[in-house]
Amino acid sequence: MLQLEKQIQETKMPQSTKTAILVIGGAEDKVHGREILHTFWNRAGGSEAIIGIIPSASREPVLIGERYQRIFEEMGAKFVKVLDIRDRAQGEDPAFQEYVEECTGIFLTGGDQLRLCGLLADTPLMERIRQRVQLGEMSIAGTSAGAAVMGHHMIAGGSSGECPNRALVDMAMGLAIIPEVIVDQHFHNRNRMSRLLSAISGYPERLGIGIDEDTCALFEKDGTIQVIGRGTVTIVDAREMSYTNQAEVGTSDPLSLHNLRIHILSYGDCYHMYQHQAIAKNEQNLNL
Amino acid sequence: MLQLEKQIQETKMPQSTKTAILVIGGAEDKVHGREILHTFWNRAGGSEAIIGIIPSASREPVLIGERYQRIFEEMGAKFVKVLDIRDRAQGEDPAFQEYVEECTGIFLTGGDQLRLCGLLADTPLMERIRQRVQLGEMSIAGTSAGAAVMGHHMIAGGSSGECPNRALVDMAMGLAIIPEVIVDQHFHNRNRMSRLLSAISGYPERLGIGIDEDTCALFEKDGTIQVIGRGTVTIVDAREMSYTNQAEVGTSDPLSLHNLRIHILSYGDCYHMYQHQAIAKNEQNLNL
Repeated sequence: MLQLEKQIQETKMPQSTKTAILVIGGAEDKVHGREILHTFWNRAGGSEAIIGIIPSASREPVLIGERYQRIFEEMGAKFVKVLDIRDRAQGEDPAFQEYVEECTGIFLTGGDQLRLCGLLADTPLMERIRQRVQLGEMSIAGTSAGAAVMGHHMIAGGSSGECPNRALVDMAMGLAIIPEVIVDQHFHNRNRMSRLLSAISGYPERLGIGIDEDTCALFEKDGTIQVIGRGTVTIVDAREMSYTNQAEVGTSDPLSLHNLRIHILSYGDCYHMYQHQAIAKNEQNLNL
Repeated sequence: MLQLEKQIQETKMPQSTKTAILVIGGAEDKVHGREILHTFWNRAGGSEAIIGIIPSASREPVLIGERYQRIFEEMGAKFVKVLDIRDRAQGEDPAFQEYVEECTGIFLTGGDQLRLCGLLADTPLMERIRQRVQLGEMSIAGTSAGAAVMGHHMIAGGSSGECPNRALVDMAMGLAIIPEVIVDQHFHNRNRMSRLLSAISGYPERLGIGIDEDTCALFEKDGTIQVIGRGTVTIVDAREMSYTNQAEVGTSDPLSLHNLRIHILSYGDCYHMYQHQAIAKNEQNLNL
């Protein structure tokens, strides 16, 4: 009964208090409609939003931090602060920790995902952020490198122009905000299907998510993924994979992957991560 | 009973008398092991092979024709002739038609697939070649442009670095040697997954076949596809596609394609085109 009441309450909640995880494929519109950034601002509380920007992936953290700060201030956020973490020790900084307790949204910028993980992974600050996100107490967004770190396993680098092979992709540990997924970004723009397939061959229990530029996979608490933006989100579902030679062949040998399920989703389409089901835009009521 | 005897007879046939269709992703090894070209030579009859080379896709038909002629002569073919067709009228040339009646193998070189189809499609010569191939009376191979023309629908051109969209691919009519498929070549080498998906969105009843360089999809008469060579063959099976917006959106809008089945096949793997089943190398006896 309590559960039911909670559900009814949640349904009645205005959008701006419904937290979400926004995984952005990089190069999101920062000038015109800003739809993706606006959706994050909205999900972080809109005019009540208290936003923390973590620019640590970037080698120009001041520049990039200030740019996003200005954007969210222009949108009318209540408070925006850049958490310019350049040292793992700052992950224990009480001032930062206090701010994160108040935050309604954290934004991870682009840059280098290995740098970002090196600075943040397993720090008390990051643990607390993950905890509050998973409790639905705040929203989080990451773009480009900030998107790559979302899974437990992370694509750290790689290349294109080859058939799937283990040497095509460098794997590392991510920040495990959505442990179930392996994210690749700038996806079709940089021809990364082959590297995502290479990554998935080693972790077929993970869901591969390839996100195009100026495109966002918005994860709801119930595991629904909604697509917003100008490109596509590609889902690689290897649960039914009947065969791979991944464990047997050399690092640069061609990989076999039999029986993959793939969905290309465009604006407004959804995917249920736990029901493993794609739903077309016109089969649902959008609820961004 | 007759059927059974025929099967036993066929099983006992030496490899060199079993005809096949070899669809090659371009840039096949012409110098060292020459495995793919050697397989064609073998399937065309080996030392008994009478081979016709059609270099009409190329703007340098003499050069490329002579190169393949030399290769198959070195392998020990009985007779090799270049059918240097530069005019549709030559598709009615009695000398060419006579030669095609004797042929045990036809080889289509690379170049421009539109040029090749423009010169050959619907000529009496091409009709007779297709007929003899489909009767199992002779083998045929095509590389690059020569591979692209195999289907009823053909990818004439396109680009990469974008999510699937209709403008990413130019479609035309092929030579329909294997009408059921849409072939793309230089596949992972030139990042063509997105353009093959774009092609398939319009013709989901066709089987998408992406073939890497120095890689061959060898089609047996029973619809089995075997993979040989250094790369992979990608199968895109859209029979179960539950949704596409292909007919509704603008030409450069992102495409949705839900519920595709994809197989990445490497050396020795098979795919049964009619049973829609991938079979791993180690689950079968190879029979090239």
